[in-house]
Amino acid sequence: MPVDHASLPHPSLCITVIGGGLIGASWAALFLAHGHEVVVHDVAPEVETRVRQVLRQAQPGLEALGLSLDPGTPRLRVEPSLASAVRLADWVQECGPERLGFKQQLWAEVEQQCRADAVLASSSSGITASMQAARMRTPERMLIAHPFNPPHLIPLVELVPGKRTAPDTLQRARLFYESLGKRVVVLRKEIPGFVANRIQAAVIRESVSLVRQGVVSAEDLDVAVTQSLGLRWAVGGPFLSAHLGGGPGGIQGFFKQFAGGLQLLWLHMRLRPVLLTRGTREALADEVLATYGATGIDTLAAHRDAQQNAVLRALRTPPGAAPCLSSPSLSEESS
Amino acid sequence: MPVDHASLPHPSLCITVIGGGLIGASWAALFLAHGHEVVVHDVAPEVETRVRQVLRQAQPGLEALGLSLDPGTPRLRVEPSLASAVRLADWVQECGPERLGFKQQLWAEVEQQCRADAVLASSSSGITASMQAARMRTPERMLIAHPFNPPHLIPLVELVPGKRTAPDTLQRARLFYESLGKRVVVLRKEIPGFVANRIQAAVIRESVSLVRQGVVSAEDLDVAVTQSLGLRWAVGGPFLSAHLGGGPGGIQGFFKQFAGGLQLLWLHMRLRPVLLTRGTREALADEVLATYGATGIDTLAAHRDAQQNAVLRALRTPPGAAPCLSSPSLSEESS
Repeated sequence: MPVDHASLPHPSLCITVIGGGLIGASWAALFLAHGHEVVVHDVAPEVETRVRQVLRQAQPGLEALGLSLDPGTPRLRVEPSLASAVRLADWVQECGPERLGFKQQLWAEVEQQCRADAVLASSSSGITASMQAARMRTPERMLIAHPFNPPHLIPLVELVPGKRTAPDTLQRARLFYESLGKRVVVLRKEIPGFVANRIQAAVIRESVSLVRQGVVSAEDLDVAVTQSLGLRWAVGGPFLSAHLGGGPGGIQGFFKQFAGGLQLLWLHMRLRPVLLTRGTREALADEVLATYGATGIDTLAAHRDAQQNAVLRALRTPPGAAPCLSSPSLSEESS
Repeated sequence: MPVDHASLPHPSLCITVIGGGLIGASWAALFLAHGHEVVVHDVAPEVETRVRQVLRQAQPGLEALGLSLDPGTPRLRVEPSLASAVRLADWVQECGPERLGFKQQLWAEVEQQCRADAVLASSSSGITASMQAARMRTPERMLIAHPFNPPHLIPLVELVPGKRTAPDTLQRARLFYESLGKRVVVLRKEIPGFVANRIQAAVIRESVSLVRQGVVSAEDLDVAVTQSLGLRWAVGGPFLSAHLGGGPGGIQGFFKQFAGGLQLLWLHMRLRPVLLTRGTREALADEVLATYGATGIDTLAAHRDAQQNAVLRALRTPPGAAPCLSSPSLSEESS
């Protein structure tokens, strides 16, 4: 994918990754593939060996997307001293343990050692920026930038500002992650699990419940999801899918046809229903139409189906392949 | 996709589709593209015009998958008399209104008019085979074959036998739908919403809740899903994803790391938790390992990432395209 360097805040940044585990190393791979300098701070032994191993694993995927990465690049450095690691950083991407005390202590130290204009981003999937920044003197430059694993491959980054995060920090973060080819969403409220992990949790709960009730095997549950909803949601999210599932009436037609059945199904699934009152339906329909309403239903559906076909062709598996995974030769080279 | 005609129960079948709406017409497109004769039974005016319009819309997608379909084919016939429509059928695919009374009445009539060896399948998404067959003399040949919309494109078919469905009917159905390139899962219990629609309902509930709470816009909710979970689940379902999300420990590592957090998140989402007791975790891990355990974690992960890349490349959108949909030219021709 060609990188739009015009949108980079700086042509080449010095980025410090705190924590050389899987998430940190995957972020490092992406930063390096976009030409940045990367310092990984970690006190564990053999960190450099393990990080470079992840770079090697990430290399084919990044190259398939049009980027290049040399796993032996001298632009990567491992630094066991936190103070030295962050001193010159333009950007800090924290990927440490998910413990509140660790993160509060870390940021209080980092802000004393790093440049005044460095942005401090946490990859945390659950500890909010407001909580992490409780002991900071400069909380305005700290926020959550939560990737979906592995960050070098999956586009989503959820940006979640804390109560004291400055608007300018949020704007700089948006530009920075977009310059890496990431797809950014900004949350308006701090909430446990943010968006993607909450939706994932809802799916895991129902999946576990169905298998434990003996309705379906774990194998068939995975087949059911990959062969229907996954394909659909790779191309259009729940609201576009509802808009296109409502026939010519779009999202309003969807609610008219399905709101009652959905609420009954939620009850049967022992989920506390979200009341689809007239006010709720109208507010949701307004948002959906503001997003997708400029294009006709038929045109949207034709585009969706065309993309669906592209995905199906990309995933086409040879007969006898494993249920959810084709051979690597097929998927990497011949599709 | 090349069709394995060896697995067809018959080289060419006479298939009656009851109901010429969107689902019925899409099934007709798939049956015709596989060389079968199709009779659509519907009493509405202009049915043939509308069905052939759906064939025209389905044609590019089917051709992209290696099948051919002539929207003017004489192998399609519309028949307003139910008795005439089903008389010669090898297979009946019901796609009528979702009303219990309608379906019970329909099957009681169909079984009197059709051949004794015809299989009777309902596309219903919610009314179980046991309920539909309540008034049948030959319930052993009736079952649910629930597609995901549109059936000519999305591979999943959920087969749900009723209490009196014969094992042989289920087996014939599995072979028949697989001969059409469908991916079949068999449910072991009749349950409202079956599998895919229950999981979809869980996602819609959380999506609506997040937007109504003001956490995220509907547009960003769709971006969050398409750019993370959708991509992931197009390639591997929730259980494979958990197995690969647990590090070297696989599914057991996943539960060790995440079971506590999941249960807290379910509580925060006001979802009744599914208790991840030791017994539940062990039973699930056994199933997951029976499905995926023969291949090492690193190999599975490399395959998954390779397929992920293939999907990402297939979906690559030009700059400035709509958030979730690229131009049709891009997705149809150049990927």
